[in-house]
This record gives sequence, structure tokens and C-alpha cells, in this order.
Amino acid sequence: MIKHLLSGADLDADTATEILDTAAEMATVAGREIKKLPALRGRTVVNLFYEDSTRTRISFEAAAKRLSADVINFSAKGSSVAKGESLKDTALTLQAMGADAVVVRHPASGAPHRLANWVDGSVVNAGDGTHEHPTQALLDAYTMRARLGRLAGLSVAVVGDVLHSRVARSNVLLLSTLGAKVTLVGPPTLIPVDIAGALAPGTDVSYDLDSVLPDVDVVMMLRVQRERMKDSYFPSAREYARRYGLDGPRMRRLPEHAIVMHPMNRGMEITPEVADSPRSTIVEQVTNGVSVRMAVLYLLLGGNNR
Amino acid sequence: MIKHLLSGADLDADTATEILDTAAEMATVAGREIKKLPALRGRTVVNLFYEDSTRTRISFEAAAKRLSADVINFSAKGSSVAKGESLKDTALTLQAMGADAVVVRHPASGAPHRLANWVDGSVVNAGDGTHEHPTQALLDAYTMRARLGRLAGLSVAVVGDVLHSRVARSNVLLLSTLGAKVTLVGPPTLIPVDIAGALAPGTDVSYDLDSVLPDVDVVMMLRVQRERMKDSYFPSAREYARRYGLDGPRMRRLPEHAIVMHPMNRGMEITPEVADSPRSTIVEQVTNGVSVRMAVLYLLLGGNNR
Amino acid sequence: MIKHLLSGADLDADTATEILDTAAEMATVAGREIKKLPALRGRTVVNLFYEDSTRTRISFEAAAKRLSADVINFSAKGSSVAKGESLKDTALTLQAMGADAVVVRHPASGAPHRLANWVDGSVVNAGDGTHEHPTQALLDAYTMRARLGRLAGLSVAVVGDVLHSRVARSNVLLLSTLGAKVTLVGPPTLIPVDIAGALAPGTDVSYDLDSVLPDVDVVMMLRVQRERMKDSYFPSAREYARRYGLDGPRMRRLPEHAIVMHPMNRGMEITPEVADSPRSTIVEQVTNGVSVRMAVLYLLLGGNNR
Repeated sequence: MIKHLLSGADLDADTATEILDTAAEMATVAGREIKKLPALRGRTVVNLFYEDSTRTRISFEAAAKRLSADVINFSAKGSSVAKGESLKDTALTLQAMGADAVVVRHPASGAPHRLANWVDGSVVNAGDGTHEHPTQALLDAYTMRARLGRLAGLSVAVVGDVLHSRVARSNVLLLSTLGAKVTLVGPPTLIPVDIAGALAPGTDVSYDLDSVLPDVDVVMMLRVQRERMKDSYFPSAREYARRYGLDGPRMRRLPEHAIVMHPMNRGMEITPEVADSPRSTIVEQVTNGVSVRMAVLYLLLGGNNR
Repeated sequence: MIKHLLSGADLDADTATEILDTAAEMATVAGREIKKLPALRGRTVVNLFYEDSTRTRISFEAAAKRLSADVINFSAKGSSVAKGESLKDTALTLQAMGADAVVVRHPASGAPHRLANWVDGSVVNAGDGTHEHPTQALLDAYTMRARLGRLAGLSVAVVGDVLHSRVARSNVLLLSTLGAKVTLVGPPTLIPVDIAGALAPGTDVSYDLDSVLPDVDVVMMLRVQRERMKDSYFPSAREYARRYGLDGPRMRRLPEHAIVMHPMNRGMEITPEVADSPRSTIVEQVTNGVSVRMAVLYLLLGGNNR
Repeated sequence: MIKHLLSGADLDADTATEILDTAAEMATVAGREIKKLPALRGRTVVNLFYEDSTRTRISFEAAAKRLSADVINFSAKGSSVAKGESLKDTALTLQAMGADAVVVRHPASGAPHRLANWVDGSVVNAGDGTHEHPTQALLDAYTMRARLGRLAGLSVAVVGDVLHSRVARSNVLLLSTLGAKVTLVGPPTLIPVDIAGALAPGTDVSYDLDSVLPDVDVVMMLRVQRERMKDSYFPSAREYARRYGLDGPRMRRLPEHAIVMHPMNRGMEITPEVADSPRSTIVEQVTNGVSVRMAVLYLLLGGNNR
């Protein structure tokens, strides 16, 4: 097993599959029957969040507690960071305190990699800048596999602000490793010419959502942050939604079995009809997030056998 | 047992009495002898606080931990709420993560009721807007019963800003159910004509505190929030205190056995002499709060027998 | 054993030595082999922080959790304090809830002492204003003893803003008790004439760092807060560093075995060459902090034998 989970690229097919299989076992624990496992009793997991993300933090906290780990939450808001404490100093603190795992969310791309050089424990990237968010990719993959029975050979459209999306980046890396075919869809300003090939060979690009829909098994709608729009990629949010948003008529062009994945925070990229349709996997994604994060922590920390 | 505790009206006499009796048993645990019970081991209690309330949050957290539950604190300050996450989306998250109980404080009246529609777990209203705060009413009732030996037949004056008080509302509902007689006392602008009967038949209203005092067993002083005064119900805080505040001379008009209940944060409604007198129950109220919340969580979640 | 730890002056030589010896035993727990002791199972430790201090809070939280205590974090930022809740009211709350220990950081000197009058549990001062920070002094003493084999007879220079430093104050008190000789070094404006003798007989003062260095076993650099400089003790930070900062050439004037202690947040008082040298004990200080705080909580709360 790997020591850190920093990037979708850290995972080869065997390791990724082991995580997904372990998550499936954990799901029985995350369910109502078994509530708690003693696997990480006595281990300390630190949630080190330099950006707000209630859902991700709670998901990791719930996962760690179900494995009986002690959890210490560190939020950079209202912390010593204001007094000029650097990431390295914080790392030394966590290291000295014997944290077994550090789950880190940071606005700077690459921060988790730097942190991994400074601590003995395992580092899990919970989102760094516009770079990566590998456990999100794992839970997305888990959800696809649970709905569609497989990952190899699936055709997945990733739609939206690919340029700034750490979720897109981690998903392309992981899905390619697991044999799915990814097509990036969005306006040219948000899909740089060389991004697709640079991420994973075989990744396609399209600027025409309608032409892609009839042939995909999964359409993954990225959240479009209104603050990005101020860079005037588009005349207006309405114009964006008209070309790249997913509404009812467009959804009906999908194959009957196809699923729609999207973030919990709905925006201009998706209409309520689509978000609430049976194709939508949003609630499963959240549930699966806890199971996948239990699996990641369990495997990185070696469970009881360390 | 009921599934949620959203309102004082959720509790019939048998259920309320079962909670108070269970709280009395828990009190031996909350005391020094027994510190912890395994009853909720493996269960997850989420404290979902959209308003600051250190005391209430800590009280629920202490109660849940004494029952060996895992506690996840969610404070809306510095959370994804700033990024536009709705209560429904948060509910889906908690639901998907399998929270067994959600303790919610929210500035909007009715928010806990809406939450209860969206999650499988139990919802406990820890204060919603100007609406209700049922565990506060339970701990007040527990404190009266502990001091005076009974609730049926007690005469209770609730004094102050009844209009905006969730504590008053929940107390009137619960005390009426348990056979106490409530008189609402305050200026007419803060006691709408039809509020008393609408809450519970038999509830009286008085605008003259001095005439009420000689006949009550309990006087409950509501906190008067200075910011409400700006609506000029009164020429001044001093004028308010002169007519509806409780000072030493007024306290001495109470029957000898009568007790005084009031919030921890003292304001213009009570003088230090009264707050520090043996009639005052404020410290017991806080202690009893942990026992009562242990009882509520224990009974809602079904203890070990679920 | 003492009940509270409020000041370095609370500790006589026997008690201080017992804490350091116990911390050494705890270090095997804080290390990788044994992760958790059941000593404080069922006890509740409240971290009551009215000032930000991530490192100190996490250190106490990790210490308490390794001893299996339940930990409740209370941060005054975003708390009821904004609604006017006084320290006394908060104390009553904690008292009523049966907190076994309260770890308090407060901007007002003396706040922990007042708190100790209002609660039955043990109070640990985690830093109060410019007054004291006794667990920091204990971990500094632990680190010196671990590096140099003893405390009695050591010569320790404490350099910098002595006037405003709670760390300096607690260290002088504790080191004197344990038989070390302390020399306070800094500009006259930051070392009041009578401070040395008032703290502990035998404490020396020097305004010339260079003359002190060749004869000390330990040089402890206090953090100089730039905001203090605005009171114009000095024409500039550069001028301060020139006279009282520790750089490579100055470090080489120390005896070969001498060590350098300094805060994690590096400032103008120390150059990177010194901070990263083998003489620097900064990482050990953090590690030792957890062990020392485990020892303090264990001994104050009486472990399993209470």
C-alpha cells in the first residue's frame, strides 16, 4: 500500500481497486448494522483545514471516528496562522505530536506534497488549490462502479470549468488508470489545448456538450464558480448555462442507463429537475464518501497490523 | 417514545415524565460517582449550530459523550454555509453520513421541523428563532420538580419578553401538559392578546408583576435583550426594570418557598441580590441541563436496545 | 500533589521533579509503541481558549486524548462571550457540567486564578496575559534535562522581551526552584530594575548578550513581538537584532555543549542558521510538550486512583 494519498496519479489499478473493494466492506459498517470498528484505536488523525469545507471535514471526521481513531480538528481560521505560523512549523508540530495521519485541505496547489516531506505520518490530500482532490475521485469512481457494475470501458464526460477543477484533474487520472474513457467538455477558455493529453493519454476534448451526451455512461457536472465568470470567459451566466448546463431536455438525450454526477452545491450548471432525477447520484456520493475515506485511512495506516 | 424533539407540544404527560425520571437516573452519572455510560457507543450525534450558543452546545456535547456517543460539531460560522450550502443540502450530507441524532440550533423558526423531514436520524431542537427550545423547558421543569417536589398544581409566573422568547413558548406548552398553571407577565406590547390561550388553555396574562408575586411557587425571569428595546416598547431600560425587573424588595413579596429561575446571562431583568440568593436555581439549571439532555438522547436513540 | 497548576511558583522541587519524571514515563506512550492509556477514561477536560493558540490547544488535546479523557474545546471566538457572558458565568457552566479539568488561556493576567475559585475541577494555566505559562516552563525544563542530563547548577540565559513574557516569568520561577541559575538579558527598557530579584533571588541581569554567551549551558530566545516595538524601545528591528538577536557568529561563542531554545514562530530574534542547527531544541520542545501535559493532567486528576 502507498504511504500518502496526494494525487490520483499515486494510485495504480491494483491499489485503487483495493481501496474501492475495502470501501465496499466498510459500507456495511457505515450502514446501520455495524457502527464502529476498533481498527484505528489509539491512532490520531488530524484534520488540517486551511479552507472551509464542512462536508469534506465532517466526512473524514466521521470516517476516522468509525474506525475508533482520535480526531483533532485544526481550522486555520482563527488559528495561529494569523500570527505567522508557516505550514512547515505546523508540520513540525504535528510531527512532534505523533499524528498518524494528516488530512489536509489547502488553497495552495502542492501544499500536501510539501507537508508529506515534513511528517512521518500519512498525508491525505483533501483538496489543494486547483490541483487535486483524490478521495473525491475515489468516491466518484466507487459510485460509478456501484451504479453501473464496472469502470473499465465506461465513457465519462466531465463538463465545465476543467481548468480550475481539482476534482476534474483527480478524476481524469484515476478513471484513466481504471480503464474508463474520459471526454472533457466545456468552453475552450476553460479547457487548455494540452491539458487532456498531459493528464492522461486517450483523454478527449469536446466543446459541444450536445454531441457528446448520446454516447456516455456518466456525465459529471463540475461546479462553476460564479467568481470565475468575472474573468469574462462568457458574456453571462445564462449564456454559459445555455451551452454547458444540464437541463431536462438535454438529460433526455443521455442513454437510458446513464447517470449524472454533480456537486452538492447546485449552481447554474444543473437544473433542479436534473438534480432531483433518479439519474442523480448526489446522495450516494456523500454516503460513499465516508466508506471510501474509511478505506483510505484504514489502508494507509495499516489497520491493526501496523 | 417519540422520534424527534422539536416542540414542547411533542411531549404528552407520560413521555415528559419518562424523560424527567430518566434524567434523575442520569444525574447519578452526571455526578462524580459514575462518569460514563456505554449506552450510545458507536452512535454519532451531530451538533449543528447556525447560531452561537456555547453553553447549549457544550451541554449537549457533554451529555452525548457521557453516553459514549461520537460527537461531531458543526458550526455554521466559518463553514460552507458561506458558500451557499442550503439547510437541505446539509441535511442530505448528515443523512448520507448516517448521523443518529442531529441537535440543531437555527435562527429561523421551524428549521428543525424541516430538517426532520430530510433525515432518518432523530432531530432535537436546540432553539429555533423565536419559536421553541424544548430541552430548556425540560430542564426548567426538572429543576422545579427537584426543588418543589412536584409540578402538578404549581403556579408559575413567566416574566418578560414573552413575544420573542422560545424559552417561554416551550415552557408554557410543557408546564401546562404537566399540570402547572402558568401566568404570563410583562408589558402589553410583549404579550399579544391571543398568545396565552393559543399556546395552552388556562394560561393567564397579567401586566402587573407586583400583584402576581404573592401567589406563585416559581417566578421565571426571561432574558430581556436590549436590542429588542430599540423598538421602543418602553421609554428606557430603567423604566422596564422598574416595572418588570426583579429586585430584593420585590423578591421578598414571594412566598417563602418560592424559587427564582433566570438565564445565566444576567441583564436588566434581575439584580445581583436576587441572582445570588438561595432562591435562585441558576447553577442547578445548568447541571440539570446535562442530565436532561442525556435522558433525551438516550430515549430518542433507544439506548442499547435499538 | 497540587490541585491546580497556575504558576511556576506553585511547584516546589519535589512536585516539579515528579512531573518531569512522570513525563519521561509518558514519553514512551507519546512515542510510537504505546499510543493510549486508560488513566483518565470517563474524565472530561475542557480547553477554554480566549486567545488563539493552535499549538498549545492541540498539545493539550492530544495529551488528554492519549489518557482517554473526553475533550471539549471551547473557543471564545464565535462564542457566547460576544453576548456578554462573563468568565464567572462560564466557570459556573463548566462547574455545573462537572468538568474534571479546565485548561485555560486568557489575555488577562490572573484569569486562571479567578477561575480556580469558581470550579471544583483542576485548573491548568495555559498562558494568561503577560503573567505565566507554567506548562511551557515545565517542557523547557524537561528538554534541558533530557539534553544536558541535569538542571541543578545549569546556567541559563533568557534573552529578549522579559517584561512582557509569560514564558520568561514561569521559567525563572521554575528553574530557580530546580537549582538552575538564570541570567535575564535584553535592553533595559524590557528588563525592569527590580524584576529579577522579585521573581527569584539569585537571578542576574545583563544588558550585554555577547559577554554572557561564553558561560551559559542554555540560551533561551524569547519571541520578540513586532507590535511591542512600536513603543519605540528601539530605533528599529534591525538595531534590536544586531544587539540581542542570535546569529551564527554569536552562536559559535557558546560552549560546545550549550543548547538553544526558541519559540516555533521564528522572528527577528534568531537567524535560520541558528534555528536549524543541532543545538536547537525546537522540535523536541513540541514533542516534550505532549508528554509534560500528559503528566500534569495525570497527576492533577489523580489518574485511576482518584
